[in-house]
Amino acid sequence: MSVITLTTDMGWFYASQMKARILSVNPDARIVDITHDVSPQNIREGAYILYSSVVHFPEAVHIAVVDPGVGTERKPLIVKCGNSYLVGPDNGVLIPAARRLGMYGVYEIAENRYMAGRISNTFHGRDIFAPVAAHVSLGVKAEELGRVFKDYERMDFGKLETGETVKGEIIFIDRFGNMVTNIPGDLLKLKYGDWVKVKISGKELEVKFLKSYGVAEKGEMLLTISSSDFLEISRR
Amino acid sequence: MSVITLTTDMGWFYASQMKARILSVNPDARIVDITHDVSPQNIREGAYILYSSVVHFPEAVHIAVVDPGVGTERKPLIVKCGNSYLVGPDNGVLIPAARRLGMYGVYEIAENRYMAGRISNTFHGRDIFAPVAAHVSLGVKAEELGRVFKDYERMDFGKLETGETVKGEIIFIDRFGNMVTNIPGDLLKLKYGDWVKVKISGKELEVKFLKSYGVAEKGEMLLTISSSDFLEISRR
Amino acid sequence: MSVITLTTDMGWFYASQMKARILSVNPDARIVDITHDVSPQNIREGAYILYSSVVHFPEAVHIAVVDPGVGTERKPLIVKCGNSYLVGPDNGVLIPAARRLGMYGVYEIAENRYMAGRISNTFHGRDIFAPVAAHVSLGVKAEELGRVFKDYERMDFGKLETGETVKGEIIFIDRFGNMVTNIPGDLLKLKYGDWVKVKISGKELEVKFLKSYGVAEKGEMLLTISSSDFLEISRR
Repeated sequence: MSVITLTTDMGWFYASQMKARILSVNPDARIVDITHDVSPQNIREGAYILYSSVVHFPEAVHIAVVDPGVGTERKPLIVKCGNSYLVGPDNGVLIPAARRLGMYGVYEIAENRYMAGRISNTFHGRDIFAPVAAHVSLGVKAEELGRVFKDYERMDFGKLETGETVKGEIIFIDRFGNMVTNIPGDLLKLKYGDWVKVKISGKELEVKFLKSYGVAEKGEMLLTISSSDFLEISRR
Repeated sequence: MSVITLTTDMGWFYASQMKARILSVNPDARIVDITHDVSPQNIREGAYILYSSVVHFPEAVHIAVVDPGVGTERKPLIVKCGNSYLVGPDNGVLIPAARRLGMYGVYEIAENRYMAGRISNTFHGRDIFAPVAAHVSLGVKAEELGRVFKDYERMDFGKLETGETVKGEIIFIDRFGNMVTNIPGDLLKLKYGDWVKVKISGKELEVKFLKSYGVAEKGEMLLTISSSDFLEISRR
Repeated sequence: MSVITLTTDMGWFYASQMKARILSVNPDARIVDITHDVSPQNIREGAYILYSSVVHFPEAVHIAVVDPGVGTERKPLIVKCGNSYLVGPDNGVLIPAARRLGMYGVYEIAENRYMAGRISNTFHGRDIFAPVAAHVSLGVKAEELGRVFKDYERMDFGKLETGETVKGEIIFIDRFGNMVTNIPGDLLKLKYGDWVKVKISGKELEVKFLKSYGVAEKGEMLLTISSSDFLEISRR
């Protein structure tokens, strides 16, 4: 298991220090940058990005560092999930992805010998999560890193209110301006061409449910199913 | 042929899903990010970036995904070019690069067995182009992917009007503010120090043709030859 | 020594041409992007980023290209440092990192046979520094590249004025808005909870010295020690 992915809000420069530590421990690791552009300290956005990404990797150690609580009492965690592991702070960022992959155990990372020799108070991504993930990619088991941890921070993408209307939330806006909701794409049983009433930020719109962006007229708003299988509001 | 490059307008997060699919098919692929910052849906800018990049790789499979027509009838293409392959949508984005490398055949990608098991309507980069490119990097031939396709979308960077004056276009502005034109650097037979009349957005300037940026005075505008051998208007 | 790092102000697209050249010379090189987001032509910011990064790599060839003087008489340099090498223009960008690693010799890069066949005037990163670094990663010695060069551009992060007050400078602002100074974190002998008078851009503040960001109240300013061991002014 030599693929290690990185999802952070820290930009490339700080993230490269995590890569240096990974390569110090496992020079053969394949590092994949998922993103370093998570909105600063936006744990939920990081959780969504991780959740959307992990299913595409057959097996990997995924590190997610959106960590405003670094240097406080919040625990560093490793979650065992099917063929993969998730590594990051105990603030919920790992949980939706872990549930999606199947959670087989949450552990507190406590064994110092798998961390950096000196641990800064402001950068556990580099000093704890990166070296731990690299050791795991070499075969160290979650059980060897610390004890089972049951009291971890839960997170989901918000409960849906369903009934005559469905009320969800926008959980991610991408660089095209596509607004991804937490409403599963198949919940409303829509057919291409159906008109749907959408209320967003207090404004009501009537938009067509379409197969894809290119099918819409230039400038037209549309509703479609995102590549992560959620409903998404877009404009051509 | 294990180098696979990515040129997209989609940002890092979506692009990482393409990498996951590539590594699922060919775990030894060397992935090089050319950019994920193409201006959203700007096919011509993507074409220019691909055109400028491909010549520097001895051999590679180059994926370019600037794809506003995803999910419509536009075809997925693979172009055979000397030692390399180009993979992407039929909207022109591959063509200038293909011409530069030498085009030996354009094929429609039609063989489902080299694609992902399930194909979303909004992300063919992940579900078609990435797995196909990975299979090609392992030795699958363009001919095995589909039939020859002759009716592809043509693209060039605009015809030059030459005569007493040369009229070209700006095809790329980089992060330094350098404005790269589609005028070949050697067309005007300029010598360093020559003054050139430039009309740009209706404004007339007289700028010196210089060897490089650092030769100009602070704040001075200059004309130079870009690293892709086009004329470029810059400011020190 | 197969790790090659890149620190540039040029964005991803141009940097990918450097990677193409590296892989042409050494197909097994491990390339790590430190950043391509250095503020355009900000040599000092590039120097700080390089300085902060190099210590985390056990051994590597580090390329830094922030190079407004490209195409002028400024020399291309290689610096031998402990297990590592630094490669870049003679404008100071390499020097703080080199001092930190221990400088064992500064050489002018003069041997054409390790460069690209044709050298553009505007992109020595691609045509000189990348191929040279790749050759060095394969075992070519600094001594084989050119003669010792003593008259190189010096750089430091500014002299501190110490006494009743300490006067330093902000040398880097990260994407969280953390302002990193050139004042060593342990200079003031502070204890967590101490109040410190800070004067910044003519404005006086009283801020607490804290262990980390998460310990502060929401919106509170704080003083802490950055992950590079400098004092840093932050806001929760």
